Amino acid sequence: MKKVTTGCLIIIGNEILSGRTQDTNLQHLAKALNEVGVRMVHARVIPDVEDIIVETVNECRKAYDNVFTTGGIGPTHDDITADCIAKAFGKALYLHPDIEAIIRKREAPPEVMASRLRMARVPEDSVLIDNPTGGPQGFQIGNVYVMAGVPMVMQAMVSTLTKERLGGGEPVRSRSVGAYLSEGQVAVPLGEIQDRHPDVDLGSYPFYRQDGYGTNLVMRGTDEAELDVMLEEVRQMIVGFGQEPFED
Amino acid sequence: MKKVTTGCLIIIGNEILSGRTQDTNLQHLAKALNEVGVRMVHARVIPDVEDIIVETVNECRKAYDNVFTTGGIGPTHDDITADCIAKAFGKALYLHPDIEAIIRKREAPPEVMASRLRMARVPEDSVLIDNPTGGPQGFQIGNVYVMAGVPMVMQAMVSTLTKERLGGGEPVRSRSVGAYLSEGQVAVPLGEIQDRHPDVDLGSYPFYRQDGYGTNLVMRGTDEAELDVMLEEVRQMIVGFGQEPFED
Repeated sequence: MKKVTTGCLIIIGNEILSGRTQDTNLQHLAKALNEVGVRMVHARVIPDVEDIIVETVNECRKAYDNVFTTGGIGPTHDDITADCIAKAFGKALYLHPDIEAIIRKREAPPEVMASRLRMARVPEDSVLIDNPTGGPQGFQIGNVYVMAGVPMVMQAMVSTLTKERLGGGEPVRSRSVGAYLSEGQVAVPLGEIQDRHPDVDLGSYPFYRQDGYGTNLVMRGTDEAELDVMLEEVRQMIVGFGQEPFED
Repeated sequence: MKKVTTGCLIIIGNEILSGRTQDTNLQHLAKALNEVGVRMVHARVIPDVEDIIVETVNECRKAYDNVFTTGGIGPTHDDITADCIAKAFGKALYLHPDIEAIIRKREAPPEVMASRLRMARVPEDSVLIDNPTGGPQGFQIGNVYVMAGVPMVMQAMVSTLTKERLGGGEPVRSRSVGAYLSEGQVAVPLGEIQDRHPDVDLGSYPFYRQDGYGTNLVMRGTDEAELDVMLEEVRQMIVGFGQEPFED
């Protein structure tokens, strides 16, 4: 396998673990990373607990090229992500003037402003992550990117992260095709195709619909020519079973 | 905090990490576990790679009361979960006669049957997890519950896991209320309410709608009387800001 730039997402939030909120940030980030040549290879969902956040960040930032966090950067008592990141890096927090300026644009009573200004605190040596929604920015320290949990804000922040900033490689592309064949039917020939193309990830995903059950076959890799060859092999395999391949 | 029975979900599947598939199993399992008094406190998403699966299972089964896995138990080359669980426990795989019987009910050519019978392999000392869809069962070994990744099948398997089997405690209940107040506005009084009720988890979740922005406030715990007291405190706080609390 070629050297790939890896990504890891740490989703911080009791609301995901309790089932109250359906996470969608993982899928959004994964797709965005494909475009800038970073492969998401690991994700965790952890609660709003200081020791756990600190330990998880320190473990993951050693193991992966880029680590992203979502959640816990609002103004309330359960928003402790900035504190935990600072602790993980052994840095102090300070009020970043650019974030403070954005927060102070909207007037508020002193007590409310004090809570909102918690969102301006970043660890020393951080670089900001722009927030095109106009709200407070996120921040990057080392290889850790700290972003909002609200999907609209998180997506805005992700849109500003370039391939250069993330050290990404070639974009990850995919091909896919479906057939009304069971996974059991295609298992052996599929394994043979995978063996011939070790640099491409070939997955099979069963589906169950009103009109029958079948399997979607998905190839992922960075070499478009090889993906096209492999797609043709998979299509021929399907035709060999007397079935019509269709667009997944 | 009272002793709680903990749960951890390991989502096995490149298709989740690549962004191709939106996971919904975490939310479904989390809600089901609330009902049987088990708290999901950790989740991971990992690729279909043997060493990673084995290591993750061994790490998590020591750390949490119940560990659940989804994905990787189909008949194809990338379905390696059963092999990895067996390796993690130092057990051999064998063909379970009850699963084999279900698979053989549907006729198939020998090669296809051989692939499908991969799904009958379970580690020694496993106990089956029923599959009310009529397909192959999952299995439990020690405190690890191995289930399908397809949501319909996974949900059917989860529906068979009782409080007694999982060693669950009191069901986790929640109360929630919304207000057109920013998180910054409620931050200080909310922190005070949380401090008075350390056994209840109080979270605040901002929302942005056409008619304005606001915050949903969610309380989670096992003591219904305390939840009701706390809900009333939160409602009074909202009224104190001159706002009308509404159903979340």
